[in-house]
Amino acid sequence: MPGRRKTAASGNATDQGGAVQGRLGIIAGGGTLPVLLADAYPDAYCLTFEGTDCALPDEILTRYRYEKLGSVFTALRAEGITRIVMAGATTRPHLDMKQLDFTVMSLAPRVMKAMGTGRDDALLRLVISVFEEQGFSVVGAHDLLPALTASAGLLSGAPLSKEARVDSARGRDILEGLAPLDVSQGCVVAGGLCLGIETIQGTDAMLRFVAQTPDRLRRGRGVLCKFPKSGQDLRVDMPAIGPDTLRRAAEAGLEGIVIAAGRVLLIDRDVLLPLADELGLTILAEEV
Amino acid sequence: MPGRRKTAASGNATDQGGAVQGRLGIIAGGGTLPVLLADAYPDAYCLTFEGTDCALPDEILTRYRYEKLGSVFTALRAEGITRIVMAGATTRPHLDMKQLDFTVMSLAPRVMKAMGTGRDDALLRLVISVFEEQGFSVVGAHDLLPALTASAGLLSGAPLSKEARVDSARGRDILEGLAPLDVSQGCVVAGGLCLGIETIQGTDAMLRFVAQTPDRLRRGRGVLCKFPKSGQDLRVDMPAIGPDTLRRAAEAGLEGIVIAAGRVLLIDRDVLLPLADELGLTILAEEV
Repeated sequence: MPGRRKTAASGNATDQGGAVQGRLGIIAGGGTLPVLLADAYPDAYCLTFEGTDCALPDEILTRYRYEKLGSVFTALRAEGITRIVMAGATTRPHLDMKQLDFTVMSLAPRVMKAMGTGRDDALLRLVISVFEEQGFSVVGAHDLLPALTASAGLLSGAPLSKEARVDSARGRDILEGLAPLDVSQGCVVAGGLCLGIETIQGTDAMLRFVAQTPDRLRRGRGVLCKFPKSGQDLRVDMPAIGPDTLRRAAEAGLEGIVIAAGRVLLIDRDVLLPLADELGLTILAEEV
Repeated sequence: MPGRRKTAASGNATDQGGAVQGRLGIIAGGGTLPVLLADAYPDAYCLTFEGTDCALPDEILTRYRYEKLGSVFTALRAEGITRIVMAGATTRPHLDMKQLDFTVMSLAPRVMKAMGTGRDDALLRLVISVFEEQGFSVVGAHDLLPALTASAGLLSGAPLSKEARVDSARGRDILEGLAPLDVSQGCVVAGGLCLGIETIQGTDAMLRFVAQTPDRLRRGRGVLCKFPKSGQDLRVDMPAIGPDTLRRAAEAGLEGIVIAAGRVLLIDRDVLLPLADELGLTILAEEV
């Protein structure tokens, strides 16, 4: 990204689709997703928060503190930003209570309430609300880069065996039963038996657990199902699979991975699909 | 159990409640439960299947092969058995197809169908049906030994903290959401976050997984919730906690265990409750 500046004169950018829309602000977390977005939207204003392991180069990135959220809104407005995207992994911040600005303090009751629910979606919904109340629209990375997700169909490997299709249907039933509870985006079913349900530790931890299943409980190879929770706001929290997911799935002996078409991010797609073929893993995208 | 014979002359036994009922047959698996039942019902006829690690002494135990199920029914009738209890852990048998008797062969289509569902409750319901069709009534260990389960109330340790009560309520919600799917009898919630959902590997495996949760995802100590699935037939498949459950729960840093009153077996109760006190673990039984 040579020659780019942190501040752009124009308040507008042309989307990939060609429509002129408001200038984009990228609130960047870790991983490759913010980099893909910044490449596709060279006019975007990129910011991150202290403590985030952000891969964007310093010359296009401005760092803020969570405690000074008010300065973020001021900067976004000064930069002519009308819509923002939150992309990449973040960790829950440890706030320095003495540093909080008025904006953060005025949000405290709502933050406490959302955190008290123990539901991550409540906290993320609050974040969206706050940005919207400040006049920004919040869009999802998959809206800006449709190629990040998959259309329905076979992405890699052989078509699923009959047994794996039955396992996949059961996996989807399990995720659907859990959907209203905001617990899980993934599970593994093999030979009709559920071998793992994803919890807060994430998909890779679940797959390591599944890999340790005693042989006497293994029937058939099984599949990983990865679907968003029913109320999940994909603008800030989207299921994803990446090369590590594939390696863990292969180590767990699975036949394949079934994902929701259009609703699961494919991280490092150029690496992902050849790796799946190499590992002999099927990846299938299904309509939700 | 000195001087007891495998075969008793009388076809009747007096239950603990004093009512005269049919003679009991104990189909024994592993663990202490069959031993407790045999002690309480000295007149019972005890049998197990080859491959089961059964703790009952040989002099009161008769061994059968799954392939020769017909001979079990014949023996039970000859012994004057009218009701049976299935107690203790069993493993899914590997059948020698050349040894199957007519009884087993005639059941094959139903067994295949039940196994094809991938749902353990379907297989266990079939087992109950088969015994009932043969004229036996099937009772649960908890019906014969009510002291195996807990009445509602605090069984050990301090009353749960307010935070742990909130976690417990969320854990029960999660299990209720999964109940129709016959997946899980247990889960762990800490600080509102679900850290583990029990799958086919069992409670102890889940607790070992929970113990590995990174610190950044741990908020509060948390509780293990243990409740039967909604359609679960407690006569053949009952949730249980034992000393190992407590040790694993303590290693996972939990504050306590919340179980369904009257519906969860307390294995080795005499060891269990003092151990809970020693480990500083609360055990609370709640009405379902």
